[in-house]
Amino acid sequence: MPYSALPYKRRVFYYETDKMGIVHHSNYIRWIEEARLDFLQQLGLSYEDMEKNGIIMPVIEVSCKYIFSVRYNETVNIYTKPIFFNGIKAVYSYEIYTEDNKILAASGESSHCFLDDAKRTPVSLKKRYREFYEKGMALLQEE
Amino acid sequence: MPYSALPYKRRVFYYETDKMGIVHHSNYIRWIEEARLDFLQQLGLSYEDMEKNGIIMPVIEVSCKYIFSVRYNETVNIYTKPIFFNGIKAVYSYEIYTEDNKILAASGESSHCFLDDAKRTPVSLKKRYREFYEKGMALLQEE
Amino acid sequence: MPYSALPYKRRVFYYETDKMGIVHHSNYIRWIEEARLDFLQQLGLSYEDMEKNGIIMPVIEVSCKYIFSVRYNETVNIYTKPIFFNGIKAVYSYEIYTEDNKILAASGESSHCFLDDAKRTPVSLKKRYREFYEKGMALLQEE
Amino acid sequence: MPYSALPYKRRVFYYETDKMGIVHHSNYIRWIEEARLDFLQQLGLSYEDMEKNGIIMPVIEVSCKYIFSVRYNETVNIYTKPIFFNGIKAVYSYEIYTEDNKILAASGESSHCFLDDAKRTPVSLKKRYREFYEKGMALLQEE
Repeated sequence: MPYSALPYKRRVFYYETDKMGIVHHSNYIRWIEEARLDFLQQLGLSYEDMEKNGIIMPVIEVSCKYIFSVRYNETVNIYTKPIFFNGIKAVYSYEIYTEDNKILAASGESSHCFLDDAKRTPVSLKKRYREFYEKGMALLQEE
Repeated sequence: MPYSALPYKRRVFYYETDKMGIVHHSNYIRWIEEARLDFLQQLGLSYEDMEKNGIIMPVIEVSCKYIFSVRYNETVNIYTKPIFFNGIKAVYSYEIYTEDNKILAASGESSHCFLDDAKRTPVSLKKRYREFYEKGMALLQEE
Repeated sequence: MPYSALPYKRRVFYYETDKMGIVHHSNYIRWIEEARLDFLQQLGLSYEDMEKNGIIMPVIEVSCKYIFSVRYNETVNIYTKPIFFNGIKAVYSYEIYTEDNKILAASGESSHCFLDDAKRTPVSLKKRYREFYEKGMALLQEE
Repeated sequence: MPYSALPYKRRVFYYETDKMGIVHHSNYIRWIEEARLDFLQQLGLSYEDMEKNGIIMPVIEVSCKYIFSVRYNETVNIYTKPIFFNGIKAVYSYEIYTEDNKILAASGESSHCFLDDAKRTPVSLKKRYREFYEKGMALLQEE
């Protein structure tokens, strides 16, 4: 991992399991959101600040491949990686590993646009939120 | 049931179960919200309208007793009953029955206040939302 | 729709919204599970029966595109379509429409394998659950 | 706090908020489960071990009072306290504080019985799981 960000560590909660005895697949979609927001925050790109600036970053596409079941009370490490960013759209990929980092339990991707919170119309961060734009561009080059 | 409202019928979703093989207890708290909002809507007291009038109705207390386990794909009938209302506070009780209405699976209660959405300060519906207040008072007498 | 199955109608619950004021994207992943299980049940392919036969059908891949925001108390219609099935793997696609069927709010896809519940090893429905296999194959031809 | 257990620290996830902009009340019921299982684990009473011994500990009653709203990305400290235990029933109380421990955001209680996982009939831990019973009794005296 070339990024200064640490992987997002997440213990599995009991209520995240289903009657198959493993974590319900929908929760991975929630975990990657947790991981993404933690990743951005670690790098000084707080989503709270973005919202205070009147900008939201909704998900426009999400996908996940489930490889290895995760169970109650296990801990996973989630690695977030920005794979596209131009101030109008952002794409992140995720790898969810078991705690010992030996088994890839799942991998996923999420795409986002940036909207003016009040009008719900697209914005370009280059114009509306220069600081985030520049940090986001720098991240892409970092690897 | 003296009310004109029908019980709220709800099928159990797969993701609402946990590794015990039954519905996770936290979901009943969500179901009684669904039942309450459905009950109010049936009686012409739409929560959407309340929010459009700048008033929200947060939960200030909730409780639930779990009597009989409910499983995936079963349907429950939830009966909502207003037990206190004065335009400043409202209390509802709930009974969750199996589909055949023979077994009481759970019972619960929720208490609510009314707040101005923008200021988050208490409001009296008697002053701020007369129509809801009067319907709410009439409901209490109905039984 | 060439299938005899009706679309799955689903009202949006309050707790499914997030602070953006719209439904949180992870819930669509749950809705398509609800829609798939309802679709199979309508066609006589009950997932409960499958589990009673010792077979589970976990998700191995899921994706969703978000096109149009859905809000509290709106109703969506979800159309499920089997797009691949060979008794070892099954793939379904989904279209989520607004209640008037005029706006495509989201589309998605889910892939599944079939496992022996006790051993968690792959099974072929052709051998292990002939009835489901034949109905599943017939469905594919139906369109 | 007389117990050797540390409070359970929990950051608020984005998807736990609702359209009121604050955490949906049902999530507190989930948080106190997280806190209870963490508390027991810290004291060497692992719920995983209990399940491996064929015993489950379902919730038979739960309640929560909501005092102060909690928002996205805030952290809460949850203090768990056993208030009744006799090997047949257990009751825990919870206090949810803001990160600086200055504001009590919510308080709650949960009651549990112990069941044989296979038969779903009540068991006495004194007979079936002596180690848990003795630690549980010792905890009650500790304060």
